[in-house]
Amino acid sequence: MIKKVEHIGIAVKNLDDAEKLYEKLLGVKSYKRETVESEAVTTSFFQTGENKIELLASTDPDGVVARFVNKHGEGIHHIAFETDDIEAETERLKNEGFILLNEKPKRGADNKWVVFVHPKSAGGVLVELCQERED
Amino acid sequence: MIKKVEHIGIAVKNLDDAEKLYEKLLGVKSYKRETVESEAVTTSFFQTGENKIELLASTDPDGVVARFVNKHGEGIHHIAFETDDIEAETERLKNEGFILLNEKPKRGADNKWVVFVHPKSAGGVLVELCQERED
Repeated sequence: MIKKVEHIGIAVKNLDDAEKLYEKLLGVKSYKRETVESEAVTTSFFQTGENKIELLASTDPDGVVARFVNKHGEGIHHIAFETDDIEAETERLKNEGFILLNEKPKRGADNKWVVFVHPKSAGGVLVELCQERED
Repeated sequence: MIKKVEHIGIAVKNLDDAEKLYEKLLGVKSYKRETVESEAVTTSFFQTGENKIELLASTDPDGVVARFVNKHGEGIHHIAFETDDIEAETERLKNEGFILLNEKPKRGADNKWVVFVHPKSAGGVLVELCQERED
């Protein structure tokens, strides 16, 4: 089952500039940065209530986040929902007719297993399922 | 100060269809619908963790949500942050350089006072500040 919104991912052009902006907006500082080589992004995390705001800046001009920003501009990129059984939840969504971008969980930022659901099957929203990794 | 993400607003074309989709995704049912005449929307709310997902369907082909969907397609429309002093928080953000769409709080859905921040001043994100109304 889906437990809660784990984080909201926001695509940005420049991570230094975006961190300053979100520090002003949220009134808290980013508590960590992490690069995920396989996704060609550097992330920066803010805590707000029980959720995180994850800023995403591309490390590659042809990376997935760079292409998103070129097409749509900066803005909200995805919503990540936490589950405690990502394989069962992936199977459940597949059976409900959602289209998965990856069926097998892959390693994401912040020590997570992640599966993405195609926006065209989810009302235009890029949905991420995530589960804490135990390794 | 900003306390937490109160809800994530998602623009949809058809509220019946979207409710079915989000029931499948989230595994819970919408717990209420509410029309906000002044914004020309009918909303539908889901609870997930401490956040709400607010679906927004236009009641007017020329309404703000209809125009959003015509331009961008269905998808994430705004993030609403809860504050316990919306006037002070509005003033704080204005002084930090954010551009407000309304400086005076107006009545939104779900018994809230709401102020919107222009996406062009907030990294492409339409930000809502909200506070529970006491009337």
